[in-house]
Amino acid sequence: MALQNGEKPKVGSSSSGLIRVVLLLRVVAFFATAAATIVMALNKQTKTFVVATIGSNPISATLTAKFQHTPAFVFFVVANGMASIHNLLMIIADVFAPNFDYKGLRLAVIAILDMMTVALISGGVNAAVFMAELGKNGNSHARWNKICDKFGSFCDRGGGAIIASFVGLLFMLLITALSIIKLLKPKSHHNCSSLVP
Amino acid sequence: MALQNGEKPKVGSSSSGLIRVVLLLRVVAFFATAAATIVMALNKQTKTFVVATIGSNPISATLTAKFQHTPAFVFFVVANGMASIHNLLMIIADVFAPNFDYKGLRLAVIAILDMMTVALISGGVNAAVFMAELGKNGNSHARWNKICDKFGSFCDRGGGAIIASFVGLLFMLLITALSIIKLLKPKSHHNCSSLVP
Repeated sequence: MALQNGEKPKVGSSSSGLIRVVLLLRVVAFFATAAATIVMALNKQTKTFVVATIGSNPISATLTAKFQHTPAFVFFVVANGMASIHNLLMIIADVFAPNFDYKGLRLAVIAILDMMTVALISGGVNAAVFMAELGKNGNSHARWNKICDKFGSFCDRGGGAIIASFVGLLFMLLITALSIIKLLKPKSHHNCSSLVP
Repeated sequence: MALQNGEKPKVGSSSSGLIRVVLLLRVVAFFATAAATIVMALNKQTKTFVVATIGSNPISATLTAKFQHTPAFVFFVVANGMASIHNLLMIIADVFAPNFDYKGLRLAVIAILDMMTVALISGGVNAAVFMAELGKNGNSHARWNKICDKFGSFCDRGGGAIIASFVGLLFMLLITALSIIKLLKPKSHHNCSSLVP
């Protein structure tokens, strides 16, 4: 790419297509993690079981399955909520302050924040998925019985939230990779010796 | 930084201090994740319990706690093992082929691989830590009893492996952030217009 004397390389305009792609991916990632947060946070199932019969009177007990009862699901909600906020802030920054920069650090800060969000979602969704597997299959060695046979719709909604979160993780991995590649872009204009007449 | 006409900016030499710091961090991260892998993979405790007494003969049962019985711990071993291999390969590449590059992509590829390793360790250690919490405290709502009162040293070794893995995760977060910052470095030489006489 030949540049005129005194003209600065226009990094912004040449990579505006990439910026738009990242923006679109962020919107998808935002909706995926927001859906995961909301579905899991509202996940609750109450069920009444007959536990005994005295004469002809059934004795019943009402049990409630809530996400708050499992620390891994609480972490899942917090992690996906924070990831949603991160992507929302990044979208707002991209739309309303696309040219704001501080000492050329904007892209690096975004890439590092994206990477930390990847770590957060990955931790949350993996903690939740192994706890969900335990709820679904139980663990005979530890004598932990499965609970999904009793709380079917609780498990279905939890599974849906986990799938949404994995979609969010996949998109965040893509976004972070593109954030890193964006940092590389200026290097293509880097051979300054070609500018010297 | 003023450059002479026709002289290419020496990115490599100006950031050799940073490269050495990253190499040191990688060695620590490698040992942390390798220790986590080995300790968890060898984690096994066999215990004999008296389950009943017939007359004066005690009936005993031998139970074994193994990491393989819990899918989260299997994933923990795989994730930490892969992270160890990643860091080992990166150390080898840094030491034996420090100048190998393909189309200027070396630093970006390293940063992306580092980011994926962060996701892997974060997933593995968070899955394991919530399963360990369940083993330590149980979950009264799901009627899952704690098992650490019976398998104390199994839990202690598992806890040690989890702490080592968290140390590895912390160092990988630092390494990835530095890998991203390394990509930024060439931009400081980027204002090519100052080169034009």
